[in-house]
Amino acid sequence: MSEIKKENPSLFTTLSPALLNLYDIKNTTVVVIDVLRATSTIATALYNGANAVIPVDSVQECISIGKQLHAITAGERDGKVAAGLQYGNSPFEYPESFIKAKTLVLTTTNGTKLLHMALNQGAQSIITGSFANLDAVCAYLIEQKNPVMLACAGWKDRVNIEDTLFAGAVIEKIKDHFSIACDSSIMANKLYTEAQNDLFGFMKNNHASHYLRLSAFGLEKDIMHCMTPNTANVVPIYHQGKLIVKKP
Amino acid sequence: MSEIKKENPSLFTTLSPALLNLYDIKNTTVVVIDVLRATSTIATALYNGANAVIPVDSVQECISIGKQLHAITAGERDGKVAAGLQYGNSPFEYPESFIKAKTLVLTTTNGTKLLHMALNQGAQSIITGSFANLDAVCAYLIEQKNPVMLACAGWKDRVNIEDTLFAGAVIEKIKDHFSIACDSSIMANKLYTEAQNDLFGFMKNNHASHYLRLSAFGLEKDIMHCMTPNTANVVPIYHQGKLIVKKP
Repeated sequence: MSEIKKENPSLFTTLSPALLNLYDIKNTTVVVIDVLRATSTIATALYNGANAVIPVDSVQECISIGKQLHAITAGERDGKVAAGLQYGNSPFEYPESFIKAKTLVLTTTNGTKLLHMALNQGAQSIITGSFANLDAVCAYLIEQKNPVMLACAGWKDRVNIEDTLFAGAVIEKIKDHFSIACDSSIMANKLYTEAQNDLFGFMKNNHASHYLRLSAFGLEKDIMHCMTPNTANVVPIYHQGKLIVKKP
Repeated sequence: MSEIKKENPSLFTTLSPALLNLYDIKNTTVVVIDVLRATSTIATALYNGANAVIPVDSVQECISIGKQLHAITAGERDGKVAAGLQYGNSPFEYPESFIKAKTLVLTTTNGTKLLHMALNQGAQSIITGSFANLDAVCAYLIEQKNPVMLACAGWKDRVNIEDTLFAGAVIEKIKDHFSIACDSSIMANKLYTEAQNDLFGFMKNNHASHYLRLSAFGLEKDIMHCMTPNTANVVPIYHQGKLIVKKP
């Protein structure tokens, strides 16, 4: 960790949504992180040309907005496409040939809840981050010169490894541009530097909870894809209820 | 991390008091961890022969109970002995020559709050942990064969490095005896294995928030002492409002 430079904007990390309310995020860019798999899928769909991704809390809302907008509805519960929806949470379901110029209504639990918390706490702007769009997120944060909150979605408010690893990856790339007085950030960065040469292996060998949960559904390939950097380098930014690609 | 053995009792870690309510701790031994400096000082005072340490929330309560019991009152606010109290939070203030056969009423913020949360959530038993009593805590947990919650006090609900490091140190020593399906535990263990050869240097070189806070008060020596394993190997156990030494 480099010296703390007070003249730089601040950077904090919250390892669980339950800790977000400890911070004033009014002038802050919040990066919502839900690596397995919501924010990876959001980046992928937008990178592949989706017009927008609309994140919603419930299956019912997903169906209702999907009908209203003639949009694609997607979401899983317990590893299966939820009843009444058309598609799942896997980034592999959204190639350009399918998703281009379409709108995706996606229901997730941890990521969407966190996004709405950030909205309610008055975040200045909200983007989503995942390994899929690591470099795009980092370039955006450096360019903005705004205070940053790396907000991990975790699992039902519990801390998880993959979201922490992504926070650590961002910090590794942008730390010279920010003032980091935050133990969670230091820890995330350390964890990432230990895991960076084999992110998937780190998840697997350490029995990460989400690795166990998804691999039990035969989704190892999804995990491997979601732990691969820079497969979909766009910046999804939240604007009037939708995640759209931030134009340069 | 070794294979998860389902027949072993569970072990979880909470990196902040704000996450404790996500877990059922009814049949669990909760280890309250507040390395800088409450639980280090508690272990030291008891190791040096104090009859009991009574942890209380407020300075007022500390004064009132101190008078009632003719006990020593101690506690700091913002790095100074709080007005109306006699002593501070440093383990160096409690050598055997001073504390033997006395009762210490200690007001702390983070650690005491967490202890009371664990009580209210119905923890089966509560002990306190710090590097000072690392081996005693580990031996006790292995012997008990009870589910374990390593509960980090942090700083005003924010995660901190030193409490996480201690959780990781405990896990490193006892993980073969427990079933660990908990990402926070895995992360704490990883952080510890990276830091173990120089815990103080790890705190200093990474600008840990509590290192900065205490060293600004000239308390580097305290930090160094509190990051040193096994200087006071007793198990402080909470019983009827007091922390006393658990007899073998």
